[in-house]
Amino acid sequence: MKKAAVCTIGDEILIGQIIDTNSSHIAQSLNEIGIRVATMVSIGDERKEIMGKLEELLKTNDLVITTGGLGPTKDDITKHALGELFGSTGQYEHTEQAEIVRELLVRRGVPLFESNLAQAYVPTGCEVLVNRLGTAPGLVFRFPATRFSHQPTLYSLPGVPFEALGLLPAVMKDICQHQALEPIYHKTWATFGIAESTLAEMIAAWEDHLPQDTKLAYLPNTLNGVRLRLSCYGDTAEHAAERLEAEFEKIRPILGTALYGKDQDTLPGVLAKELKAKGVSVCTAESCTCGRVAHLLGSIPGASDYLMGATIAYSNAVKINDLKVPATLIEQEGAVSQACVEAMAQGAMEKYGTTYAVATSGIAGPGGGSPEKPVGLVWIAVATRLQNGGSRVVSKSFSFGGDRERNMERFAANALNLLRLELLNAR
Amino acid sequence: MKKAAVCTIGDEILIGQIIDTNSSHIAQSLNEIGIRVATMVSIGDERKEIMGKLEELLKTNDLVITTGGLGPTKDDITKHALGELFGSTGQYEHTEQAEIVRELLVRRGVPLFESNLAQAYVPTGCEVLVNRLGTAPGLVFRFPATRFSHQPTLYSLPGVPFEALGLLPAVMKDICQHQALEPIYHKTWATFGIAESTLAEMIAAWEDHLPQDTKLAYLPNTLNGVRLRLSCYGDTAEHAAERLEAEFEKIRPILGTALYGKDQDTLPGVLAKELKAKGVSVCTAESCTCGRVAHLLGSIPGASDYLMGATIAYSNAVKINDLKVPATLIEQEGAVSQACVEAMAQGAMEKYGTTYAVATSGIAGPGGGSPEKPVGLVWIAVATRLQNGGSRVVSKSFSFGGDRERNMERFAANALNLLRLELLNAR
Repeated sequence: MKKAAVCTIGDEILIGQIIDTNSSHIAQSLNEIGIRVATMVSIGDERKEIMGKLEELLKTNDLVITTGGLGPTKDDITKHALGELFGSTGQYEHTEQAEIVRELLVRRGVPLFESNLAQAYVPTGCEVLVNRLGTAPGLVFRFPATRFSHQPTLYSLPGVPFEALGLLPAVMKDICQHQALEPIYHKTWATFGIAESTLAEMIAAWEDHLPQDTKLAYLPNTLNGVRLRLSCYGDTAEHAAERLEAEFEKIRPILGTALYGKDQDTLPGVLAKELKAKGVSVCTAESCTCGRVAHLLGSIPGASDYLMGATIAYSNAVKINDLKVPATLIEQEGAVSQACVEAMAQGAMEKYGTTYAVATSGIAGPGGGSPEKPVGLVWIAVATRLQNGGSRVVSKSFSFGGDRERNMERFAANALNLLRLELLNAR
Repeated sequence: MKKAAVCTIGDEILIGQIIDTNSSHIAQSLNEIGIRVATMVSIGDERKEIMGKLEELLKTNDLVITTGGLGPTKDDITKHALGELFGSTGQYEHTEQAEIVRELLVRRGVPLFESNLAQAYVPTGCEVLVNRLGTAPGLVFRFPATRFSHQPTLYSLPGVPFEALGLLPAVMKDICQHQALEPIYHKTWATFGIAESTLAEMIAAWEDHLPQDTKLAYLPNTLNGVRLRLSCYGDTAEHAAERLEAEFEKIRPILGTALYGKDQDTLPGVLAKELKAKGVSVCTAESCTCGRVAHLLGSIPGASDYLMGATIAYSNAVKINDLKVPATLIEQEGAVSQACVEAMAQGAMEKYGTTYAVATSGIAGPGGGSPEKPVGLVWIAVATRLQNGGSRVVSKSFSFGGDRERNMERFAANALNLLRLELLNAR
């Protein structure tokens, strides 16, 4: 199995100014094509340190991928260090990248400083991955066997996350073309509503009997639930797909309606597709989630096809005036109650004239909790307009506890999931 | 200056399943007490690798802080590796942590498995930082001069972010007590509305004349603008505070109203404080931001004091029916227009009876753009109820471009900033 190291270059990571997200995405991509990431390292913008560390990583890895240290300021000395390490005799202007640099600067209204134009200069002997999203290109250094005992390749990418991610497919393609990789195949299924530990117990018997070359990974996420990724090695793509699918069929009945998608599916994405396919519409009435449910529904391009509107009913006055929740109901049951959240959903559905309405009312914290209604408690309701002109409302409560931001995320994700289950029912 | 290394242990980082946020927070804290982080490393759950890498880091650093690898599963072999590295003769149960483990498990309804109870066992000879938020304690290994040529200290923290962060103050306190640190003092100011590069040019003359021992850092963030952090070394706290304040007074007039806070202030936090102090209320009417402005305003505890409600007016029908935007206005000017967004703000202020209303209408992308109104264009308006019963509306447009998620963040942050500027005007 090929071995890789991922290295970020830049003081901004070491002083904790920036959280490094690039390394994780790169590791994920390498993992998917069957390359093991042996280590990740962050180092500062210091020529000697860069050269020393990269030399060390190249000695013990087949691949080294760096991000950062390619900007136009004088601090960014990576490119020169890389050239020296590789034995380049100098730098030359890369025509295609230079054109992109000029275009980008003109569009941004930035003067054509020499430091910016220098971005398109590359060390001799390396290959270039043109960067259309920014000024600094990706660089590929293929070290000859005379330099190290093996022939490692070093990829240097810009540090700006969307530029690094933009170049990642080209890097992966290049790796697949140049390395003799044992083929690896993956299949991912997305579930929501079952905790990771419970899920693990539910499918333990199946997991224990997986073939040796087939591996399962749990990928949990607050917003999108737990993904199950099944991987197997060394086979034809078709055969592997069949095998993975067959294994999956064994646990599908256990997962039941918790299963909502596969591969890159997200909960909002699946909902958006379903809502569009059905030609139905939705609105939200949100108290504790404060717009987060609508925001998630609206995060998918084309959301205006199905998302009609949302009312953030933080105050009881809005619940009463806008959503027609009876004042006496709030007095008797409280705003965080099954009755109130159901009335909110009903009211929102009427108000916006939608097919579905999602409502939330809970205590996100840190204040506002009581022994009967502690921080972390939420009531969620989904109203559905029926074909016969009537309507139905389902509701559910959850008790999480924990901090405000996390509660709001969990509340919103579970509200989306309840909507998903209602859409399933309507099939 | 003391040198530190931060090391995460765990395969979940190396396969890209988890983004490492711990290292960044640890680096920030170390930086604040004047310790330089020389490197960050991630390694897998492999005994030999852990021992080899930690030995290497201890040789060249005064401090090594690790996170992860302390969980109850059999993969987590860090604690044993640490004990062996340190020369511990065995493990014993730490009474206080053991009690916490039992309490936590009972509260979570988890059976008292041996693997869980083993969490409270610690290698002999190390010191313990009790973890009240989880089962695995923090461990402090003070290596004697006989082991390395210097006397490095290794701190081992659990990997779960809120547990690691929970133990961080104790780690920093321990470091300050045991290391002879040159005192460092910081002062941070928060600005919004000026790009980092422009800001750098505006204060370049001042920055060039800063005393040798005073350093400026730019900390940019989409939601909270650019923070300026000024740091100086080796002086009394009072004298340093005076010096930093004096330096700051020189640029305050240049920053003008872009300056909104200091230290840990955030844009939503400052707004919340201001709204509460003034006893005024606010609502939002959001198209392209889809609830994000309300969500940010609502992210502060006690938001129900000032946030009355929000209407997410994704569809023109909602703009017309709920916010009383004239249908002819939308026909003539379009939904993304100055006239429409001003009418939305006015309509929302009337509807919710608030002192202020924030409205947004723009094209977040990727679809919906045109040559006249490209993706990334947003109109933002703030309506203010005046003392004399009248009202005023201000509006502003921005053109960003870029991806949907980033546009929505920028739109929302700029909407908050426009509200902040209006609140300033009302002083």
